[in-house]
Amino acid sequence: MEVVKYPEKEDWARLLERPDLDYSALYGTVEQVLKEIKAEGDEAVIRYSEKFDKVKLSSIQVSDAEMEHVSIDESLKNAINLAADNIYKFHKAQEFKGETIETSPGVKCWQKAVAIEKVGLYIPGGTAPLFSTVLMLGIPAKIAGCREIILCTPPDKNGSIHPAILYAAAKVGVTKLFKVGGIQAIGAMAYGTESVPKVYKIFGPGNQYVTAAKQIVSLKDVAIDMPAGPSEVEVIADASSNPDFIASDLLSQAEHGATSQVVMVTDDASIISPVQKALEAQLKVLPREEMARKAIANSRIILVKDQEEVIEITNAYAPEHLIISTDSYAKIADRVINAGSVFLGQYTPESAGDYASGTNHTLPTNGYATAYSGVNLDSYVKKITFQEISPEGLQIIGPAIETMAENEELFAHKNAVTLRLKEIGK
Amino acid sequence: MEVVKYPEKEDWARLLERPDLDYSALYGTVEQVLKEIKAEGDEAVIRYSEKFDKVKLSSIQVSDAEMEHVSIDESLKNAINLAADNIYKFHKAQEFKGETIETSPGVKCWQKAVAIEKVGLYIPGGTAPLFSTVLMLGIPAKIAGCREIILCTPPDKNGSIHPAILYAAAKVGVTKLFKVGGIQAIGAMAYGTESVPKVYKIFGPGNQYVTAAKQIVSLKDVAIDMPAGPSEVEVIADASSNPDFIASDLLSQAEHGATSQVVMVTDDASIISPVQKALEAQLKVLPREEMARKAIANSRIILVKDQEEVIEITNAYAPEHLIISTDSYAKIADRVINAGSVFLGQYTPESAGDYASGTNHTLPTNGYATAYSGVNLDSYVKKITFQEISPEGLQIIGPAIETMAENEELFAHKNAVTLRLKEIGK
Repeated sequence: MEVVKYPEKEDWARLLERPDLDYSALYGTVEQVLKEIKAEGDEAVIRYSEKFDKVKLSSIQVSDAEMEHVSIDESLKNAINLAADNIYKFHKAQEFKGETIETSPGVKCWQKAVAIEKVGLYIPGGTAPLFSTVLMLGIPAKIAGCREIILCTPPDKNGSIHPAILYAAAKVGVTKLFKVGGIQAIGAMAYGTESVPKVYKIFGPGNQYVTAAKQIVSLKDVAIDMPAGPSEVEVIADASSNPDFIASDLLSQAEHGATSQVVMVTDDASIISPVQKALEAQLKVLPREEMARKAIANSRIILVKDQEEVIEITNAYAPEHLIISTDSYAKIADRVINAGSVFLGQYTPESAGDYASGTNHTLPTNGYATAYSGVNLDSYVKKITFQEISPEGLQIIGPAIETMAENEELFAHKNAVTLRLKEIGK
Repeated sequence: MEVVKYPEKEDWARLLERPDLDYSALYGTVEQVLKEIKAEGDEAVIRYSEKFDKVKLSSIQVSDAEMEHVSIDESLKNAINLAADNIYKFHKAQEFKGETIETSPGVKCWQKAVAIEKVGLYIPGGTAPLFSTVLMLGIPAKIAGCREIILCTPPDKNGSIHPAILYAAAKVGVTKLFKVGGIQAIGAMAYGTESVPKVYKIFGPGNQYVTAAKQIVSLKDVAIDMPAGPSEVEVIADASSNPDFIASDLLSQAEHGATSQVVMVTDDASIISPVQKALEAQLKVLPREEMARKAIANSRIILVKDQEEVIEITNAYAPEHLIISTDSYAKIADRVINAGSVFLGQYTPESAGDYASGTNHTLPTNGYATAYSGVNLDSYVKKITFQEISPEGLQIIGPAIETMAENEELFAHKNAVTLRLKEIGK
């Protein structure tokens, strides 16, 4: 990791820069596939699954029989169950309790959280089965009360889905599961096909094609969870920090891929060399050493003047994950403005939040933490406003409405009040 | 209005269809303007303001002197103040009160709502000054605690902003106000210029160019409130309804423009003719008669079999505004799943929510109410998750994390726990 000592503030933006996430070069290909899926439905989905995923499917839906014969290790089952319990508890506590507000006498207004009826979860394929993401996206959907919870994930070459994915999907209550990945999955959920119901919101990570497809369908067809980018972590360290713990946290991010963003910020020069040594020692025995080395090569340790600058540069970076791996973490934590999820103290590794503490691991990357929340129960509901005005209430606020509508030259708006006030006055 | 009697369910989708909102034909023009603003800043903003808005500005920011000399009618001032009070009360009550959840012993997780630091409000120009939208977008920004609240609105030919806009902006606490409209405004707020600070989220309505520009910048540069479409209302009527009230509500929507969507749904044939008569009578004296007639010509009265179908077709339409203009509104209200804002009973016209009841009038159109909420206090905050795990807590959930990480082949994730558990065991 490059060490940058006491950078000037005008250089911070450059230091913290992420790769430019411009997927528009892929739009041509992606739009063509989406168009065919919209027009031809399942037929196009099956055709592109053969082309892209090298798998020929007769039926894209996972059958009841396939769901019934799931077998996974008892220890993994127990781990998934513990994680699911914690995720359930944390998201269940987020249920909205609105109150009715009488803004003026006789003018009652309230919000009601109503589940999005149909949601689609996308779980990428790849070397390992991301069953943890099934829990993170599915459990809040179930708590919210989504009626239809669709899950799409690419099958292996034999047309099978990993049993841990199936177990997690059954556990959270996915209603329909499809062996479809990539652009095809996003298109199928956005438009609906003969087999796949059209959903109103799509959740989940994916490669650049999935991301481009989500961007395109989000313009007018369907909502999406948030824009995507490579995963990232910032670790804040000081003299109290444990270098081994920090190295393991930095590598937890680095092993996700060569584009992962890994940053350590400290105001204490003495912690840098021990962290570097620990990194090297841990890298050597890491199965994904090569990938992690690439990410680490692009990563930085930034030494700043004082705690004030630590806080300032952290908020400027707006990391997806922020680990404050120090003894006196509370002071810094209070002043975090921009971050997805914050991990406090020496015994709170990012992997706890990735799996089993209960918080969600679908979080804003790429600086989007300046404006976006991670996935949470809110992501699965709409807050509908209601209002109920009594004749007396309308007499109180009606004249203001008439004046404002007249000044905006909207006379039918005014008349809707005038007619009612006349009727009340009779 | 066309009357459709007892349509078959398979025809509902066609009956409720909205215009296709494909703005991609504008992307070429819009992208060029955005590119120049990103590269040239204020200079390009001023150049395009001259080209598109026919106004040559030396400075684009509204000066303190201009803010100090605002004069509007006392009656309008009082109306704005009353509306602002109610909007404040309703949105203030939405402040997030999170709780700390101990998901496992020693594993504490919580959410904290933190204001988006910099937000941009766009207020369109046009025949009348939309000061009500300044209140709707600005008041929750202030309550949330946004540090920088930018407002952009196009000036008139003399380079001035309407005093009612200035009054409302000062009232809500806008921090900087710019005489910039259209694509230029969206570009300036998305990228920042010498004068206009870059913001993290852009709110507000606009014409097709503004909408296209918001779509493009939302792909990677900045968050936006929600996708846009023409405004719409559905009114539910029965024998108890007042035909004059209903006609005035339908026209409140129709007067917004020829593309406005206006629908009445009823299971009582006898209310249709009285509503049609009232519509004709009110249209004749409406200043915007011509525009409203065009909208009404494209609109429908749908007669369905029973209350069950009324509810079903309403949820299928997912209207931005839903007025249940009947005496027994509560039964229907309870079963609304898809709507932006719901108005209950005979004395709750849409114009109350448009101006002064306290609810927000920036709402999901075009069926987006299936997945989106209207603007509310949540729109101005991010919910950051925090977690704090004690050594004892990590001993409880650590083994599950190790098992899950191993099964997802993420060994550094596992190691981050293993190292800590070893340290605890010493």
